[in-house]
Amino acid sequence: MTAPERDATAQPRRRGRRPAGSDTRAEIVTAARLAFAEHGYEATSLRAVARRAGVDPALVHHYFTDKAALFAACQQLPFNPTEQIDRAVAGDPDHVGERLVRFFLSTWDSVEGRPRIMALVAAASTHEDAARTLREFLAREVFGRVVAGLGTDVPELRGSLVASQLVGLAMARYVVRVEPLASAEPEDVVRWLAPTVQRYLTAPLD
Amino acid sequence: MTAPERDATAQPRRRGRRPAGSDTRAEIVTAARLAFAEHGYEATSLRAVARRAGVDPALVHHYFTDKAALFAACQQLPFNPTEQIDRAVAGDPDHVGERLVRFFLSTWDSVEGRPRIMALVAAASTHEDAARTLREFLAREVFGRVVAGLGTDVPELRGSLVASQLVGLAMARYVVRVEPLASAEPEDVVRWLAPTVQRYLTAPLD
Repeated sequence: MTAPERDATAQPRRRGRRPAGSDTRAEIVTAARLAFAEHGYEATSLRAVARRAGVDPALVHHYFTDKAALFAACQQLPFNPTEQIDRAVAGDPDHVGERLVRFFLSTWDSVEGRPRIMALVAAASTHEDAARTLREFLAREVFGRVVAGLGTDVPELRGSLVASQLVGLAMARYVVRVEPLASAEPEDVVRWLAPTVQRYLTAPLD
Repeated sequence: MTAPERDATAQPRRRGRRPAGSDTRAEIVTAARLAFAEHGYEATSLRAVARRAGVDPALVHHYFTDKAALFAACQQLPFNPTEQIDRAVAGDPDHVGERLVRFFLSTWDSVEGRPRIMALVAAASTHEDAARTLREFLAREVFGRVVAGLGTDVPELRGSLVASQLVGLAMARYVVRVEPLASAEPEDVVRWLAPTVQRYLTAPLD
């Protein structure tokens, strides 16, 4: 079954009426936002989101390749974690820190990046459910993917240490805007921070 | 003039009536909160806070040793930056990273630490004036003090890099609570993060 077919066949399972031309994708995103807020990232399935949106599960898969892509759409993240993090991590393990910091900056150093970071941080610091969802998403889809690709010891610890530096970079560069880090050229930031991320990922920690 | 004398002589300069036993200190803190929000940390003087609170400037000095102490009271920070950071930085420069991470954890690893951090982060991510005040406070009284004590090159850059790691630690450990970093023993966190802070403070950066 191809994606367009799924899209067409999904209609009968919807609850209630749907006006012609309504935005099914937007309805799925709204349902997913509620599901993530209520149950967190881990416990939310694409099937449950489909049920809540009143659409066939195949329709959710039609619009979103996986749960990470759906979450990225909910949070208006400027990247798809599944594809892009795997790509950033692939390659020489001795330079993974450098690639990761560069990917981070290329993703967030945009006009839309700052307000998205601020919204994520504001939600996580005021709502426990938002903090939980972000924590589970970061652990599984961002830093979990980074360390899984490297096959090192203590992957969760390494992932959480990288998270501390990159979330801190987001806070210092985009939210609080501490100078000169806030206005520095991306390649300078890469040079300063890459050794830290590299150490957290691959150096002995004890 | 001793502090108690200042307290007594301050009454005539107040605007309006003051009921007996009113909390002058609390009034100064309220006036300071408004002044910091309107003008930022740098541009707010103790004299301007006194004027806004309708008290003699000497009375502000009676309750607060300096502007940093007044800001700490406004934000309910569990430490006085001026004294405690200078003390944490003093000593062998080869171990300043270790002392700084240990001081950070001893300050914030308390029951009250997490809600205070969350309030600071929530304010900075939703109000530009709060972000500015926090940025100016961190630059001058926290990371500015740290690097001033060391006399290294590019002090602002080093300060902002340390800020990125320690603010990130606060986010990962207290706000988002990424495990295992969130539940790790303080001395383990010191061991993992101290080399990063040490490098930002004293190693060649180019």
